[in-house]
Amino acid sequence: MQALIFDGELHFRSDFPEPKLRPGEALIRPQLVGICNTDIEITRGYMGFQGVLGHEFVGTVVACADQTWIGQRVVGEINAACLTCPTCLRGDYTHCPHRSTLGIFQRDGVMAECFSLPIHCLHRVPPTVSNEAAVFTEPLAAALAILDLHHLRPSDRVAVVGDGKLGAMIVQTLRLSGAEMTLVGRHPERWQLFQSQGIACCHSDDLGQAQFDFVVDCTGQAAGLATARALVRPRGRLLLKSTFHGPSQLNLTQLVIDEVLLLGSRCGPFAPALRLLERRLIETEPLIHARYPLAEAISAFAAAHGAMKVLLEAI
Amino acid sequence: MQALIFDGELHFRSDFPEPKLRPGEALIRPQLVGICNTDIEITRGYMGFQGVLGHEFVGTVVACADQTWIGQRVVGEINAACLTCPTCLRGDYTHCPHRSTLGIFQRDGVMAECFSLPIHCLHRVPPTVSNEAAVFTEPLAAALAILDLHHLRPSDRVAVVGDGKLGAMIVQTLRLSGAEMTLVGRHPERWQLFQSQGIACCHSDDLGQAQFDFVVDCTGQAAGLATARALVRPRGRLLLKSTFHGPSQLNLTQLVIDEVLLLGSRCGPFAPALRLLERRLIETEPLIHARYPLAEAISAFAAAHGAMKVLLEAI
Ligand SMILES: [Zn+2]
Ligand SMILES: [Zn+2]
Ligand SMILES: [Zn+2]
Ligand SMILES: [Zn+2]
Repeated sequence: MQALIFDGELHFRSDFPEPKLRPGEALIRPQLVGICNTDIEITRGYMGFQGVLGHEFVGTVVACADQTWIGQRVVGEINAACLTCPTCLRGDYTHCPHRSTLGIFQRDGVMAECFSLPIHCLHRVPPTVSNEAAVFTEPLAAALAILDLHHLRPSDRVAVVGDGKLGAMIVQTLRLSGAEMTLVGRHPERWQLFQSQGIACCHSDDLGQAQFDFVVDCTGQAAGLATARALVRPRGRLLLKSTFHGPSQLNLTQLVIDEVLLLGSRCGPFAPALRLLERRLIETEPLIHARYPLAEAISAFAAAHGAMKVLLEAI
Repeated sequence: MQALIFDGELHFRSDFPEPKLRPGEALIRPQLVGICNTDIEITRGYMGFQGVLGHEFVGTVVACADQTWIGQRVVGEINAACLTCPTCLRGDYTHCPHRSTLGIFQRDGVMAECFSLPIHCLHRVPPTVSNEAAVFTEPLAAALAILDLHHLRPSDRVAVVGDGKLGAMIVQTLRLSGAEMTLVGRHPERWQLFQSQGIACCHSDDLGQAQFDFVVDCTGQAAGLATARALVRPRGRLLLKSTFHGPSQLNLTQLVIDEVLLLGSRCGPFAPALRLLERRLIETEPLIHARYPLAEAISAFAAAHGAMKVLLEAI
C-alpha cells in the first residue's frame, strides 16, 4: 500500500505492507489526515520515531472482528494503552507505560492507505460533523485537556501565546468559558477570525506590563515561552502546551518567588471535542491552509512548515 | 415616581419618592427589567423584604457625581458591599456582612422609574449587546458563579434539573464546556431550543438509574432536589442553585456514604456574562415569554408564575 515513511528521511512508498490486525484492533482507511507540528518535529528527530507518520485523521473502519464497526466513520485516540496495568486502572491510560502512540511511538501512523488502532480508541463521528471538522478532533481534544485537568474560571484573564494551529484550537476552546482572552502572536493576517470571536489579538510588544491569571504557551519555541512567562501574574498559572527541544530557559527561582504554578498537559478527551464540533462552537474551515493528495505528502510537509493546517486526502 | 412596591402585598404607586444618591452612587433609569423567581418568592415573604422589587435590569445612568457615567447604558451587580471589611478585602464582597442587595435586602429595587446603585456595581453594556440580551446578564452571571467556584470538566456528565428560567441559563452556560448535558424538566414545549444546542432533554422518569458526575438543582422545589440527588453518582457533585422554603429533605447520612459533594452558589461575575452575550454564545430572545409596561407590573407578576422570562418596559 501507499504510505509516507520517516526513516531519518521522508519517503513516499507504494509497496509498504498492510498492517496485520491484532485482537481488538480495527483496520481503518483514512479519508482526511492533518499534518501536526509533532509530525514536523518527528522529521527533525523528535521521539526517534521511524515508520508511517501521522496521528490526526477521520476515516472509515474497513476490517474488524466486531462487525458493528465496519463502515463506521471514526476518529481515534492516539494512545493504545494496555488497560490492565495500575496506571490504566486508575484511569490514567494516556500515561500507560506499555502504550504505543499512533505515528509517534511504536505504532505506524495514519499517512497511508490504511492503518490499525484498538477499537477502544475509536469514536464514531456524529453525522452532522463534516470530515473537514472531524479531522480537528485530536488537536481540539488536546486543547480540552487543559480544562479537564485545570480549573479555568470565567473571571480569569487568559493569554494564549502562539497564533499557530494549536493556539487556534486553544483560544477557541478557552473563549467558551467566558474568560477575557488575548491571543499573542506574530501573524496579524490570521487574527480576523479570532477577533470576530471576541478574542483580543496582539504582538507581545503591545502588552507592556500586562499580567494574566492564566497563560498558555503553545509556540514550541524558547522565545515564546519567555514571552508567556513574562505575562503571568504572581500566583498565576503558566501552562506548557508544546513540546520542544533544548534545555528550559525558565528561571525557576523567580518562578518560586512569584509563586507561579507551572502546568503541563498533553492528550485530551475526544468525546467532548466531538460534542463541541457537533454544537458548532469551534471554527475549523478557516484554519485549513491547503489540501494535498496522499501521494503528494512530501510536498504537503514542505508547505506545512510555519503554516496553518495542511490536510492530506485519500485518493 | 412610579414604582412597584411590596409591603406584604403588591402595590403600584405613582407617588413614590425618588431615591436620594449617597456618595459613589449613580441614579439609573431602567429600560428593561426582568422578573425573577426570587422576586416572586419575595412576594411570598422570602427575606422579609419590603420596598421596591426587582434586581434584573439594563438601564441608563441619569445622574452621578462622576460625569463620565452619565448616559452610559449599564447593567449592575446587585450586592452593594462596603469594600472595606475583611470579607470584602479578601475578595468575597458578595458576602460582605454590611451589604445591601438590590430589591432584596435594605435597598429599593429596579421596578421603578429610577433607582440607585454604587458605581462600583455598574458594568457598561457593549454596543452589540441588545437590551433584550443585556437584561439577562444577572441570571447569566448567577449561572457562571458555578464555574467560577467549581471545576467542571469537559469529560463530566452533567444533569441540570429544572427547565425554567434559571435552568435555561445554566444549561446554556455549562454546554460551552463540551460536557455531556442533560436537562431534566417537565415542560417539553420548551425543549426545542435546548435540543438544537446539543442538550438532551427528558423527564426524570426517563432516566432510570442514570448517574451523573455533576448535577445542578434549579427547581426550587423539594421534589426537584430529590430528583437531582438521585442522579448523582457516588463521589459526584450536587450543586444547589435555588433557594427555597422548608426544611431540607436530603438524607445526609446517604450523602456521606456516597461521598457526594454538596455545593452552593449564588451571585456570579458580570464581566464574563457580558463577554458571553457579546460573543453570541447564549440565546436569550427565545426565553422571553411576555413584555409589559411598568404600569402593568402587577399583571406581569401574575403572568410570570411558572412562566419563562417576563419583562417590564420603561414607559
Ligand atoms: Zn498532533
Ligand atoms: Zn497500561
Ligand atoms: Zn434574579
Ligand atoms: Zn464589606
